[in-house]
Amino acid sequence: MKNIIKPYKKEFDYSYTSGASITIELLKTSPELVEAVYIHTDFNQPEKIISLCTKNNVPCFINDTVFRRINQKENSYVHGVFKKTASKIAENESHVVLVNPADMGNLGTIIRTLVGFNIQNLVIINPAADIWNPKTIRASMGSFFHMNFQHYECIDDYFMAFQKHQKYTFMLDGDMELYPGNIPKPQLFSLIFGNEATGLDENYRNIGTAIKIPQSMIIDSLNLSIAVAVGVYLFTS
Amino acid sequence: MKNIIKPYKKEFDYSYTSGASITIELLKTSPELVEAVYIHTDFNQPEKIISLCTKNNVPCFINDTVFRRINQKENSYVHGVFKKTASKIAENESHVVLVNPADMGNLGTIIRTLVGFNIQNLVIINPAADIWNPKTIRASMGSFFHMNFQHYECIDDYFMAFQKHQKYTFMLDGDMELYPGNIPKPQLFSLIFGNEATGLDENYRNIGTAIKIPQSMIIDSLNLSIAVAVGVYLFTS
Repeated sequence: MKNIIKPYKKEFDYSYTSGASITIELLKTSPELVEAVYIHTDFNQPEKIISLCTKNNVPCFINDTVFRRINQKENSYVHGVFKKTASKIAENESHVVLVNPADMGNLGTIIRTLVGFNIQNLVIINPAADIWNPKTIRASMGSFFHMNFQHYECIDDYFMAFQKHQKYTFMLDGDMELYPGNIPKPQLFSLIFGNEATGLDENYRNIGTAIKIPQSMIIDSLNLSIAVAVGVYLFTS
Repeated sequence: MKNIIKPYKKEFDYSYTSGASITIELLKTSPELVEAVYIHTDFNQPEKIISLCTKNNVPCFINDTVFRRINQKENSYVHGVFKKTASKIAENESHVVLVNPADMGNLGTIIRTLVGFNIQNLVIINPAADIWNPKTIRASMGSFFHMNFQHYECIDDYFMAFQKHQKYTFMLDGDMELYPGNIPKPQLFSLIFGNEATGLDENYRNIGTAIKIPQSMIIDSLNLSIAVAVGVYLFTS
């Protein structure tokens, strides 16, 4: 049982939610992982959270010290400390693959979007933004707890493990333009996206189908979370 | 000529870009608005910016004081100070309308996305996040300088001014589900989106066609910039 939280560091074996609704999502979906919940004395509707803690046998502290300690910008009144655990992506469902995503806000927004469009399997190729960081979890708005994810050191290890998936690489100069009228509909697919600054390099061109989302020449590229959203929407709708 | 910049405030009649590529975009698209450019002595490729300043008769200072003064988080090495000027949306082009957008990061990402999908007319209903704030401009990645925008205090003033546009309101419980196969294709349209936290209220339901982007019940909603991207992509592709 953790009864003190420190400002988050990547090497911790635990992380925490910040905010009431995300903490409620944590308690509802993964109560077995929760080590403690902290509620600030100024939080005026603690009943639901206290009752979820009681029901799930989770220690609940109404205590302000920890809030000063974390020294958070967002002024959350509730934190839920939970154990990091490995999850596994499903073999018979489609995947999204992010190669070296660097921004925690983007990563959290992408998780929220994928869950919204019914993709619940995410592959991340290292190095990558920390998926467990409270900022990522906050940007996911609680959908983090509905996502299976697995990290690989190298894309080839992922391809070796999942050979049945049709692969689509999103590249600014991809060969196939994606329109609402020409969306491929394979049973199992992997949609693969590169890093925010560099995209996917030339090694990815012939791995599967290289796809381009048509866009004006005025911008250098779409934001990563936007490109993922448009691609995933089209493949899943 | 401004030869001192202060940390940005909304009431200033000027704003500034932070970062080399956005400042280059500013100098290329709107040189007549630029009052000064500052380059940090540690910036190692100043030639292109200096030459754009010279060509456009813009004062260029290589000077570190201003960088300490702004006390920025992002550590930019280049700033371009420019005059805020009113712009006008085009009557014979389609519009996106944001009702009370609250987040500057979202607003900047939305501008980048719209320019990417060839929508260059943005209406903002007040109160709203400051479109001139350097954070918004930074999130737009320079596409800010390619966008016409107009603010209205009230949506009815906008409707009075632009009566030819077909109106589509994006609501979580909209009447029409948007799929790649059923996208309306009017010549002129207004796509209308609500605030991040509250969406559009019931008063918007019968203004035009209330549209829903199909999404899983697991999430409360898509992020605003994601919903705008999917909606605009479908209407413009």
